Amino acid sequence: MRVFICGFGTVGQGFAEVLARRMDFLEERYGCPILVTGAMDSKTYVLDRNGLDPLDLVATKQRTGRVGEDEYSDSTKVLDQAAYDILVEVSPTDIKTGGAGLRNITHALENRKDVITVNKGPLALKFNELITLARRNKCKFRFEGSVGGAMPIINLCRENLRGEKIESIRGIFNGTCNFILSKMDKGQPFDQVLKEAQQMGYAETDPTNDIEGYDSACKVAILANSVFGRNVTFDDVKITGITGITEEAIALAASRNMVIRLIGEVSETKLEVGPRLVPRGHPLSISGTLNTAQIISDLAGPITVSGRGAGRTETASAILSDLISIMDERTE
Amino acid sequence: MRVFICGFGTVGQGFAEVLARRMDFLEERYGCPILVTGAMDSKTYVLDRNGLDPLDLVATKQRTGRVGEDEYSDSTKVLDQAAYDILVEVSPTDIKTGGAGLRNITHALENRKDVITVNKGPLALKFNELITLARRNKCKFRFEGSVGGAMPIINLCRENLRGEKIESIRGIFNGTCNFILSKMDKGQPFDQVLKEAQQMGYAETDPTNDIEGYDSACKVAILANSVFGRNVTFDDVKITGITGITEEAIALAASRNMVIRLIGEVSETKLEVGPRLVPRGHPLSISGTLNTAQIISDLAGPITVSGRGAGRTETASAILSDLISIMDERTE
Repeated sequence: MRVFICGFGTVGQGFAEVLARRMDFLEERYGCPILVTGAMDSKTYVLDRNGLDPLDLVATKQRTGRVGEDEYSDSTKVLDQAAYDILVEVSPTDIKTGGAGLRNITHALENRKDVITVNKGPLALKFNELITLARRNKCKFRFEGSVGGAMPIINLCRENLRGEKIESIRGIFNGTCNFILSKMDKGQPFDQVLKEAQQMGYAETDPTNDIEGYDSACKVAILANSVFGRNVTFDDVKITGITGITEEAIALAASRNMVIRLIGEVSETKLEVGPRLVPRGHPLSISGTLNTAQIISDLAGPITVSGRGAGRTETASAILSDLISIMDERTE
Repeated sequence: MRVFICGFGTVGQGFAEVLARRMDFLEERYGCPILVTGAMDSKTYVLDRNGLDPLDLVATKQRTGRVGEDEYSDSTKVLDQAAYDILVEVSPTDIKTGGAGLRNITHALENRKDVITVNKGPLALKFNELITLARRNKCKFRFEGSVGGAMPIINLCRENLRGEKIESIRGIFNGTCNFILSKMDKGQPFDQVLKEAQQMGYAETDPTNDIEGYDSACKVAILANSVFGRNVTFDDVKITGITGITEEAIALAASRNMVIRLIGEVSETKLEVGPRLVPRGHPLSISGTLNTAQIISDLAGPITVSGRGAGRTETASAILSDLISIMDERTE
């Protein structure tokens, strides 16, 4: 089985490292090695039909800032030259156009390759086109890590809970916002907490995607399409961010034994992200950077899951679980 | 596909009702009906190769206290007369000997039938014998609902997280104890809360299995065997119940911003059930009758799940999910 890793930032490197850690396990399970036959970052690429050492790729990237020596102008031409069965697409997300990720995923599916991605842009913008293309070409297309990182949610709903009628999912889908709101619970004002989050690496230099709720909205759109079978995009989500939340609002909530959390809500009819009052002690009142989701279904009632929503190894673990699912299906 | 329902108390009836609710879904998914060709309670049985109406069975049981007109002396002889592919074993649990459940499961597996059970006794006492028998006879053997009811845990660990090295699982596996301890948090003494729990139907007339930690210990043993691949029985679990917890201990914990919860712990080396101090706000500090578990693994980090640990429909939903898994594997 041959894997091409497209995108070699934190998640791509994390996946390469996880693959190296699990190489023996995978080879024993499937009786054949998993070969990384290609990798690409935003400018360069490297190909080897005999397989590249994942840890060498990480070392090269960290030493030189480039995963390969050769530069490319069209990523799909690189994919055409590569010998691979599964594309792992983890390039930087573009939630306006889908960007390179959308082109790469589309190209791989058109060429009947299986795809694993955590790239939210393509999934939040063109989910139904991609899933239709995958079905038509009988490709496996998986994206567990795109919502909630290591928190199990998409495959849990689609596989473990496939006998349930899932009525709604409400959750905290952005660790940065939750970190900020948890700190504000203790009386710190928004601007100060944001600066602290940036210093600690929990928030990006341009925090817009997180604090305006766009990142959560992508995840809500992905859940609507993948779990509820809806046909929505990012633009259909009603979004309110957390920039307008004042110390007074937090204090008022606290006086009623409540906290304010940025909650994404999705059902057959709902598609929203916004600050919500949550009673203390409720599963969605958690503090810190974890992601959490409450799934309400007709037979099981409420099921709550939580886990690390981001992180090099944690996101890679979701990709690994998708890889194992695809391998299991292929080797049945 | 033909199902025999063995045990027709709350869970058996709940499963019959759930099956009736999902009959159309299942028939559409698999292109064939699911027939209930037999059912049995502790004294009586009914068989029909053409299929019984699940809701009629429930109505008969509720009206007469018996699921069938004919009485039996040896349940395995009834199974021998029945035409079935999958045994759903939900008879009352016996954690001393495994009881009728162990005999029925063993008999079905020996006759190359698939088995779904939530019966903790057989799983906590003879897990490795049963799983070995199932493997030898190429039978599917599933038991998601035996730990945590509708809370996803066993299949989550064994399937979704199969690329992880699971290091430990700690959880609240008994809703009755958690209800009692949550009430004690508010200052009520043990005896008074126990009486209240009995009046509300949360605790049985003989509450020994719950409050002495035996029920939790069964679940810990099942997790040790099924998730950690250990070979343990109920008797190997180090158990302390909650009967010795005083109001003073609860108050002392509260003064340190902690609560006391009955926690089951399992890892490669650990196998314990006992009262533990848990910081307020920790995932295992939850109040009420929910079950919850924190799974620690090497890549994903901590993943927490919670759900209803008991209940007619909730437990049946776990059986349904096992049934769908078996059907999916059979029809691949």
